[in-house]
Order: sequence, then C-alpha cells, then structure tokens
Amino acid sequence: MIPTSSALPFDDILALLDKMPEPDEELRAKVREREASLTKPAGSLGKLEELAEWVAVWQNREKPQILRPLVGVFACQHGIAKHGVSAFPNELNQLMVDNFSQGGAAINQLCTAYDLGLKVFDLAIEHPTGDITVEPAMSEKDCVATMAYGMEAIAGGTDLLCLGEMGIGNTTISAALFTALFGGSAEDWCGRGSGVDDKGIQLKVDLVNKALETHKDHLDKPLEVLARLGGREFAAMAGAVLAARINNVPVIVDGFNTTAAVAVLHKLDPRALDHCIFSHCSAEGAHRRALDAMGKTALLDLGMRLGEGTGAAMAAGVVKAACQAHNGMATFADIGL
Amino acid sequence: MIPTSSALPFDDILALLDKMPEPDEELRAKVREREASLTKPAGSLGKLEELAEWVAVWQNREKPQILRPLVGVFACQHGIAKHGVSAFPNELNQLMVDNFSQGGAAINQLCTAYDLGLKVFDLAIEHPTGDITVEPAMSEKDCVATMAYGMEAIAGGTDLLCLGEMGIGNTTISAALFTALFGGSAEDWCGRGSGVDDKGIQLKVDLVNKALETHKDHLDKPLEVLARLGGREFAAMAGAVLAARINNVPVIVDGFNTTAAVAVLHKLDPRALDHCIFSHCSAEGAHRRALDAMGKTALLDLGMRLGEGTGAAMAAGVVKAACQAHNGMATFADIGL
Repeated sequence: MIPTSSALPFDDILALLDKMPEPDEELRAKVREREASLTKPAGSLGKLEELAEWVAVWQNREKPQILRPLVGVFACQHGIAKHGVSAFPNELNQLMVDNFSQGGAAINQLCTAYDLGLKVFDLAIEHPTGDITVEPAMSEKDCVATMAYGMEAIAGGTDLLCLGEMGIGNTTISAALFTALFGGSAEDWCGRGSGVDDKGIQLKVDLVNKALETHKDHLDKPLEVLARLGGREFAAMAGAVLAARINNVPVIVDGFNTTAAVAVLHKLDPRALDHCIFSHCSAEGAHRRALDAMGKTALLDLGMRLGEGTGAAMAAGVVKAACQAHNGMATFADIGL
Repeated sequence: MIPTSSALPFDDILALLDKMPEPDEELRAKVREREASLTKPAGSLGKLEELAEWVAVWQNREKPQILRPLVGVFACQHGIAKHGVSAFPNELNQLMVDNFSQGGAAINQLCTAYDLGLKVFDLAIEHPTGDITVEPAMSEKDCVATMAYGMEAIAGGTDLLCLGEMGIGNTTISAALFTALFGGSAEDWCGRGSGVDDKGIQLKVDLVNKALETHKDHLDKPLEVLARLGGREFAAMAGAVLAARINNVPVIVDGFNTTAAVAVLHKLDPRALDHCIFSHCSAEGAHRRALDAMGKTALLDLGMRLGEGTGAAMAAGVVKAACQAHNGMATFADIGL
C-alpha cells in the first residue's frame, strides 16, 4: 500500500491510479434482482436503492455490509492562516483536536447518533504548512508521504469511509486548489468559510491570487497543485480515497474542503471518484460550483458548513438505513404474493 | 382527549383547534443561546440547528429529548380500489399489515436503523371505506370516531411522532382531497402512485372527477371533505396530529398521502401544522404542488414514494442526530476559549 521509493515522487501514486478496480457488473445485476423482489413498488425507495447498490458493488459483495463505518478527521495547521483568513484563531486547531478526543465536537455527536467510528489524524498540527502565498505548502516528497499516511485510514478494516477535516484557514486553501484545478477567478471560489465578512473574502481572494502568481509555472499537474497549494489534510484525504478504492471500501466525501482534496484525483482521472458519493451540498457558496465542475450531485442539502466530516456522517446515516432496507426486507415471495 | 358527544359531529374537533398551544418564546431564546455557545461557527450546522430548536420548543423543553420516537402506520382498505387504480391488488393491504408485524417491510428496517418504535393501526382493514365516486368514504360520525382513534397514537408516551400509511388506492383518495381542498384540476393531483401507466393515471383522473361531481354540494368544509373523499387512515392521521399538538409532541409528516391528511387541518387553520415538519419531497409528482400550496418545504429529497412512514423515518434519523448534536456538544467555554 505505502508507495516505495522511485524515480519521481509521484510515480507510485500514478501507478496506483492505473490499478483501480471497476465494479463487477454481474454482481450489480444480482443486487438489482434482489432489490426488485422486495415488498415495495419497484423503485419506490428512490436514492436508498441506489445507495445500497453503490455500497454493494464497490464492496464487491452481493449484500452490502456496514459493520465498521469510520469517520476519519484529518487535522492540519496552515501557514496561510497567519494572514487572518478565518473568523477563528489558529490555536483553535489544537483545542478542536482535544475536543474531538474528549467527545465534545459536532462530529462526535453525529458519530454517536449513527454508530460510526471516529479517528482523528493529527497531521503534525503543531507545525504549519508553508505559506502558499510565498512558498509551497509542502515538498513533493512530503506530499507523497502524507498521502501514504492517509492511506492508513482504512488499515483498521473499515467497510465505509467518511472523510472529514479540520484546519483553520483551509477554505482559502480549497479556493486556491479549485482555481488552479478548474479555472475561473479566485472570486469564484472564495466564500465566507467559518464566517468572515466581505473584507475577509477580499483578503482570501488577494491571497489566492498571490499564491497562484507565486506558483504559476508549476500548476500543470494535479499532484503538483496539491503539494504547492494544498495542505497535509488534503494530501492525506486524497491518499485515503485511493487506498479505499484499491481495497473495496466505498467513500463518503464531506463538504467544500474534502471536495477540494478529491478534486485533485478527479483531475488525474475522473474514474478515481466512482467509488465516492458526495454527502451534502455545503452552504459554502462555491461548493455547488465544484460539484458541477466534476458532474457530481450531493445526496443531502442541509445548509451545513462545519466540516469535521459532519456532512459525511449525516449521509452515512442515510447509507446505513439504505443497506438495512436492502438486506432486511422480505420479498414478495416471502409474503406469499 | 377523545371528543365527547355534542350537537354536531365535528364540534369537538373544532374546539380542539381553538386550544392549540403556541411555542414559549423565552424558552426558544434559551435554546438559541445554548446553540450559539457550542464549539462550531455560528449557524454552521444549518438545518440541524433549526431542527433541534423545533423539537425543543414544541416539546416545551429547554433540551430536546427523543427517547421514545414512534412511527405510526395507519392502514385502511378503500372502496375506490375496486376500480383498479393501483398497480397492486387489494389483498396486499392485509399481506402488508402482516409483513409489518413480521418485520419484513421497508419501514421495519428503517425503524431498526434509527431505533424508532413502530405501531400499526389497523383501521378495520377488512372493511373497505365507501367508494367515493358514488357515496361518502365514511359518515361524519365515523370520521370523528376515527380521528379520536388516531389521537391514541401518542397514548404510549411518544416524544416524536412520525406519520405513515398503507392503503391500496389511496393516492387517488389524496388526489381527490387535494383537488377539493386546494383547487386545480384532477390532472394536477393524479400521478403514478405505486406505478400505474398513463392509462392508469387517466382512470384516476376520471374517478376523482366523478367523486367531486357526486359530492359537489358538500365540499365547503375541510372536515366534510375528509369524511366524504378521505379514508380512515387520513382521518386517523389528522386526529393524531391534533392530539400531538395538544400534548407537546412534534410530528414528522411522511409523503403524498400523509400530506393530504394534514392538509385538511391546514385548511381549517394554517397554524395547526406549526408543530409538524415535512420529511421529504415525494417522487409522486403532485407532492411538491401540495407543499407549495401550504407554503411548506421538505427536509429531504431522496426520490422516495413508498409511504409506510418511510420518508418520515428517514427524517427522524436526521432529527435525532440534530438533537444529539445540540444536547451533547461542548461549549467554547468548556474547551477554554
């Protein structure tokens, strides 16, 4: 799983992309056959039916199984935060990681509500990434190493991975990533984040533009974009998504920042996100633009914009119910019709 | 709770409408104060914050509490079904009630997924209501008695009531109710239901028009509309919603048919549904039209159209998580900020 040394830092990652498994269409047909036999009008469970099929085919199992769902929250400190791009101070990163440990954050409660496991991945939170307005967020080697670390998210044997993140200032990082990956202006991708005012948005725009100018000669390749404009949580989440694909683990993407992380993979190969669903449309304005850019739709629209994997957890609650219905319902034959 | 005898059958129901409690705005302010203190950007849990507040104020509790959530499924057989308005045979009513008892239906699985109680209210399912194309579905006295029976739904001490129904042919009943209550043509309100073709839709339109013609001199008052064009499950659900209001129990409305039941109350007094949320927008085409007619929006949009309370159960999963977050999260003061 963990990439070994090779000529160029990103070669091992690119090699993994070539190995991505595709669904077994015969298995998909069997899942649909069972769905059609269940005691309800055909298609009447709508997206729940699609979700059960999605879990089954990507788990490569005839019956979808969610016994060890996991929310992975990837936490990082960002060099760009020192410019004051967030409504909250940088010290909140550590306080929130402690809050996760003590069970006091929103994601803890949602994991309790839906019986989801929770692991926090502290990506050297005491050491900020490089300030992308003047330097790369991380070296290419560090980026690959962080992707490899992110791959460990599924090492405990999870059967449904929900991605989440925490990092003061990281909606500015996401805006930079989206602008570099999908084009448009910085204005298109900068929003209120944790709650900044119009002046705060302008600051984010200025910083994104400065970062794009600084790195303009090195933004052709998605993984270079990730290393230069990203952050460790973005690299780790991209790694986790790749590892999940190789290991038959479906993935639920959270909101704006998580979408920026997986957009890197989408830019490398759109098929790389076929085992992922997008949990919710964030209230962060540009999230819908990002989903549109990838031709994706979100499952829920609850006006959320918290991060931490909270949107992904809400969707996991829906996905669990969908699988329960598919697996547990009687068939028309069972009831004698 | 149960109406006693009086001069006119509906007087006791109308008297209950006059007694509806309103939220305590001081309590609402306290709920908002706690919400604002929690460890997240203000407003970042979006609709989850609104839902926790909604449960709290209608329960008249400073902290929302969902210990005994209940899905009530109201089952009835309809005289109109003999015209062949459903894709399924009439005998399915009893088979599905048995299926509920044996745990094989979709609603059983969703209740398992979200730890919801389930009670099935068999509204004399072996005795069809009157065929509304030629006679009233039920007498006004029977309608009141059925509403009173529906009020028993909360007698077991539930703290969140989810409404569901089962009755072959009842989307045609709903279409008749909506046409009588909100106007428009029968075509506006008739859809595919459990899966009929275009010819089946035309049959439903013809039957609704015939029913409206038959009862045209008796459709001024919403409760008369309910008795003449409705069915026992509609009357029982309307009664349950009223009883819930009086007893501080928030209500989650399911889909197309359940919405038709509560539309009767809305027509009597729009405030009568203030303690209700609409769980999802059904794939039955006219559901959105019905929500629009009442100025309501649905929480979820999952392409479902099954009934049984399945949409309400999905929303209950969201509501439970919302309350868990509101009650369980740490405050900024707790984490020392």
